[in-house]
Amino acid sequence: MKGPNDISFPLWQLLNRTSHIMLKARQKELDQYDISIRSSAILEIIARLGKKTTPTAISRQTFVERHSISEQLARMEKEGLIVKVRDLERKNLVRVAATKKGQEVFKKTTERKSIKYITSALTLEEQKQLWTLLAKLRGKTMKTLGIEDWEYFPPSAPDDQLLTGKENLSTL
Amino acid sequence: MKGPNDISFPLWQLLNRTSHIMLKARQKELDQYDISIRSSAILEIIARLGKKTTPTAISRQTFVERHSISEQLARMEKEGLIVKVRDLERKNLVRVAATKKGQEVFKKTTERKSIKYITSALTLEEQKQLWTLLAKLRGKTMKTLGIEDWEYFPPSAPDDQLLTGKENLSTL
Repeated sequence: MKGPNDISFPLWQLLNRTSHIMLKARQKELDQYDISIRSSAILEIIARLGKKTTPTAISRQTFVERHSISEQLARMEKEGLIVKVRDLERKNLVRVAATKKGQEVFKKTTERKSIKYITSALTLEEQKQLWTLLAKLRGKTMKTLGIEDWEYFPPSAPDDQLLTGKENLSTL
Repeated sequence: MKGPNDISFPLWQLLNRTSHIMLKARQKELDQYDISIRSSAILEIIARLGKKTTPTAISRQTFVERHSISEQLARMEKEGLIVKVRDLERKNLVRVAATKKGQEVFKKTTERKSIKYITSALTLEEQKQLWTLLAKLRGKTMKTLGIEDWEYFPPSAPDDQLLTGKENLSTL
């Protein structure tokens, strides 16, 4: 697409800026628990994946580079939020688990008032629409980067989330 | 909204991760010009706002904190991409302008193949839909943060962009 009908660039700007400002609002909410968005995201992955949580799995779900994840995990270990556990059978495999403190902090973060409030600007129907559109962009980008085989989350269809994810997400 | 119909949190995760992975694909494209996404974003603002470009205006359009913008501008000045100019009439006002080198680098970045390609996963109608949904979330978040009066970009309606932005965006 070219010419005056090409809105791809400003649309992309709007996507980034909306994501960025929502992160800011969420961080403001998390400040009271003295935890960063990145840490809370990792604790959420641990709560969801359980024993399957490895640095690579975290990197693939968040699309954040492996070395940045390692740095983040080192900080969180220092803060007493997580521990790294060497797999007993596959010695070169490191698993990531939350400590008692990590679990407690995470529990506090799951009210997510800011996100619920902001998302209430959209009806449930619109939220599902947005979901489907974003999933299409994510899929195309993964293809572009040659990483289609990565196990992603959330799923591409919002109803899959409603069906499979509700137990996890309502308890987390 | 509560219970199994509440998809706000995974939807927010999807938004962040889609934004993040698209930034990654775009950065890969920009690597050939040896420029970061942040620098190219600032050069785009300068090209659009012209003499109205101040550190505050950049911060308000991107929602990036003022001190991060200052650091970024310092780096870009060192790299010879921009200059800071003190306003002749209002001495405490700093304006930001692109150098010849900055303009040349910026011009190279405006093909935006990666963004056009990824966005082609959506029809123009879907792109406008996505735009409208994102603008609603941005508006609600700005309200939450008490910054409704900030001058934002892109506009909230995609057609405003098509009407007012096309000269800028097709030439940039």
